[in-house]
Parts: sequence; structure tokens; C-alpha cells
Amino acid sequence: MTTQVIAKALSDAEIEEYLEFACRVAELAGQEILPHFRSGLGVENKSTVDYDPVTLADKQAEQVIRREIARAYPTHSVFGEEYGRSSGSCSLTWIIDPIDGTRGFMMGLPQWGTLIALNDGIRPVLGVMHQPFVKETFIGSRHGAYLRRAAELRPLRTRQIDDLGDASLCATHPEMFREGAERSAFGRVARRCKQTRYGTDCYAWCLLAAGLIDLVIETQLNPYDIQAVIPIIEAAGGVVTSWSGQPAYGGGQVIAAGDPTLHRTALELLGDSSP
Amino acid sequence: MTTQVIAKALSDAEIEEYLEFACRVAELAGQEILPHFRSGLGVENKSTVDYDPVTLADKQAEQVIRREIARAYPTHSVFGEEYGRSSGSCSLTWIIDPIDGTRGFMMGLPQWGTLIALNDGIRPVLGVMHQPFVKETFIGSRHGAYLRRAAELRPLRTRQIDDLGDASLCATHPEMFREGAERSAFGRVARRCKQTRYGTDCYAWCLLAAGLIDLVIETQLNPYDIQAVIPIIEAAGGVVTSWSGQPAYGGGQVIAAGDPTLHRTALELLGDSSP
Repeated sequence: MTTQVIAKALSDAEIEEYLEFACRVAELAGQEILPHFRSGLGVENKSTVDYDPVTLADKQAEQVIRREIARAYPTHSVFGEEYGRSSGSCSLTWIIDPIDGTRGFMMGLPQWGTLIALNDGIRPVLGVMHQPFVKETFIGSRHGAYLRRAAELRPLRTRQIDDLGDASLCATHPEMFREGAERSAFGRVARRCKQTRYGTDCYAWCLLAAGLIDLVIETQLNPYDIQAVIPIIEAAGGVVTSWSGQPAYGGGQVIAAGDPTLHRTALELLGDSSP
Repeated sequence: MTTQVIAKALSDAEIEEYLEFACRVAELAGQEILPHFRSGLGVENKSTVDYDPVTLADKQAEQVIRREIARAYPTHSVFGEEYGRSSGSCSLTWIIDPIDGTRGFMMGLPQWGTLIALNDGIRPVLGVMHQPFVKETFIGSRHGAYLRRAAELRPLRTRQIDDLGDASLCATHPEMFREGAERSAFGRVARRCKQTRYGTDCYAWCLLAAGLIDLVIETQLNPYDIQAVIPIIEAAGGVVTSWSGQPAYGGGQVIAAGDPTLHRTALELLGDSSP
């Protein structure tokens, strides 16, 4: 038995409305998160047992986002990192990662962000990555990809680099790839790139959309780690798929490239290395 | 024949004055750098041949810093990444890295910064790390270590984590360590830490001072990569030395720890692995 999934067709006006909503609630989430960022700074004898700032920030931020969705769109579903799935009556689902890059967050680094996507029943149709400390938001939908910072709105375009030897590659951590076939596959691509950079988390996808990074390869992703950035990357001209070239909505092994030829080349090198 | 180096003793008032100067010129440098950060964003067919934003930003920023030093303190010496050494008549030397973390800068990531130290003839007596995009400055001298962001000034203290199993370790890149003894030595420490994070550059030293990171291990550093952060780390209660336990002013292989016991343990594991 197969379940037929019906995607909800959204008008331009609806896309605009939901995008504005996503940006607004991401900023509300940021207000919950920031008091916990670097909160122990300057305090002696920090206890790491009693107080877990990232979990607290994650939960409070997701609660605020869920509360706003319930108020504005009570028929919509929600799928978040902290509180799982809650099903509404229509096929629209908000996919939430309150803090992507929790390790960086815990270390006080600025490379983390709040991810919010809207899925139409099949795929994410809009997404935002908001960084409340740096105060910037990456935005994507079929209306384009943009970076908003204060009053400035700049369009995003990927870079047309089609040769691995010219490409900058990002990943979260080299040891995130499982030992054996998966790590070897990543290594085959990494060795041919001009440079690699680790510890980039959600910023890597967004800066690939901005034409500053050429290739991002990750594994062990959850749907909420990737759905928000897919509309940003695609609207900027990039390609994002699973390692086997399928839609990446479900997470797992994901590869994004700014240039389609570069994507094909890297995909061939990755080969078959499913876990 | 040995050259006797005389350190200039500085009064509290002088330290204060030079710190304020360092913060002010770091901000001026930031004004030169920011127009080149993510400058190609949204532009199609970016040429990577004709325009090298990071080199331009680096040079313009160092020129501004050197101009201000020449105006305010014409007898002081300067040692900068881009324009090398210029000798003054007194033993005070300003040590400058206009953009530490050029790879992150080129990728549009926020983890880079401007480093300025003042060396008294033997060692750095004050240092600042300024990040003009994130808009924050880490400051250190014998008067203490602080993080300045807008009107807020927060004191920095390292974290008292003395067991590797509880420690967060940062380094710029795992392959920066030379294959063989050096990479093995790093691996011996990394494997025993709770977690490692790469791609952190100058932020790692500063967030170690802030008590959010426990251990930073680097190699192939230049004096201008490390001198500015030494006074920040030491004033916050941390320890920073070469891998052989000697002063780290000259760069090379450097290790910093928030806790002295952790530093000793890591140093023993690194063992003798000089290149």
C-alpha cells in the first residue's frame, strides 16, 4: 500500500506571506536564544552539569516558533528538532531547527543559525536561515534567494566553478563521515578540491548560495538540518541532492554544488557509498 | 655574539593609552576591510583572477594601521603580515595581522579578525582581536581580559576543566599538521578530548579566554598570528606556550589551555614532535 501525498499549490501572495512570517518568527526565536549564547562568559566555576544553555535555548526557541504557528496557521503541521511532529489538517508543514550548529554555539562561535522551512507536502517551498548574533538572514523561495542584513537586501547567485581543482569544499567535521566507504568517498572528492573547510554548519549552504563556497558535503543530516536551505540554494542557481542524486528532503547524505557540472563530477566520485 | 634585548617597562597609564589606540586603529582597519568582505555577493561571472578581495583588504587595512602608528608613535617599530618590519628607535613594536583567517574571510564566514599586539622588546604586553562584521573586540593586558561589544564590556575567565575527556579542542585544520610525527602528536591529544572543532582561527584563542573552549593546538603560526592573543589568554587565566613548553611569541607550534593541569597533560601527549 502506498500513501498518496498531495502537495498544496501556493500562490505568489501566499509564498510572500509565509516568507515574511518565517523571517518574523526566526527573529522571535533569536530573542529567546541570545540570552543563552556565551551566557557563562566571565563566570568562574561554570557548572556544565546543572545548566545546558544550548538545550534550553533550543527548546525555548522552538516553543516560541510553535506558538506563533499555532496562532497564525492552526491547520498547519510542525516538525521540529526538539518537540517532533504535530499534525495539522492541511498538507503544509513547518520544519524547524532552532539552533543548527549546536557545537559552535556551545563554544561561543558565531557559525550557527535558526532554520525554518515550509514544506508543501512533498518538498520545501521556502526557507530561511537566521543568525541573531551576527544579525543576518538568508532567504529562499521561487521568488529568489536573498541575504537580508539591517535594511540591506542582496540577491544571492552561486558561482560558476565547474572544476574540482578550483573548488572550495565545506563540511562540518571530517570524522562525521562513517569510517570505511563513506569516509573514503568524501576523501576522494576532498583531495581533488582546491581547499576544504570544516566547522561551517548551516553557513556553508548559505554561502554556497552566495557564490563564495562551491561544494558542501554532509552526512547524517535530519530533515530539519537541510529543508530550509534547499530553497535558498536552488533559487540561487545551485544543485542539492542526496549522494545518489535523489531529492535531499529527507536528510542523510547530502551534497550541494553551486554549478551543475561540478555537482555531477563530485557525485560520480562519491559513487555508491550508502551506509 | 648575542644581542641584548631590553624590554621597555610600561606604566599603567601607558598600557591604557596603547590599548585604546589599538582598539581605535583596529576599528579603522575594519572600515577598510568590510567593503571587501563578501564583495562579489550577487554578482554573476565573478572573476577570481583580476580581483583578490582578501589581499586588497589585508593591504589596505595594514596601511591604515601603519599610518596611524606613524602619526601617533613615530619612534615605534612595526611588524605586519603584508609589509614586514619597519624599525623605530625604541624597543616597542606593533605586531599586526590585518585579517587572521583569510580562508574563512574568502568564503564569507564570520570567523576571522584583525589582530594587533604591542611587544615591549621581549613579549606582547597587550593585544586585541577585533571582528568588524560581528562587531566585537577581545582585549587583553595585565589590566585584565575583556570582550567589548557595543556599550557592553564583559570580563573573560578561562574554564577550569583539567581532564582531557571533558575538554573541547580547536584547531584550524587537521591537515595543517605535517604528516608524520606532528600529525600523530595532534591525534594523540584529539582522540582523548570530548570533542574537536576545526575552522576556528583567531576566535578559538579568544573563546578559550572566554571559558568556552578548553584547548587550542596549532602549528605553522607566524608571530603576528599569536602575539595579540597571548595577553588575552594569560589575563583570563589561561596558559599558552610552544609545544615544547617555551614562550610562544615566535609562533610555530603553539598550544593554549584554559587550565594549567590540562595544559601539562596535553603537552606531555604532544611529546617531542618538532618538525
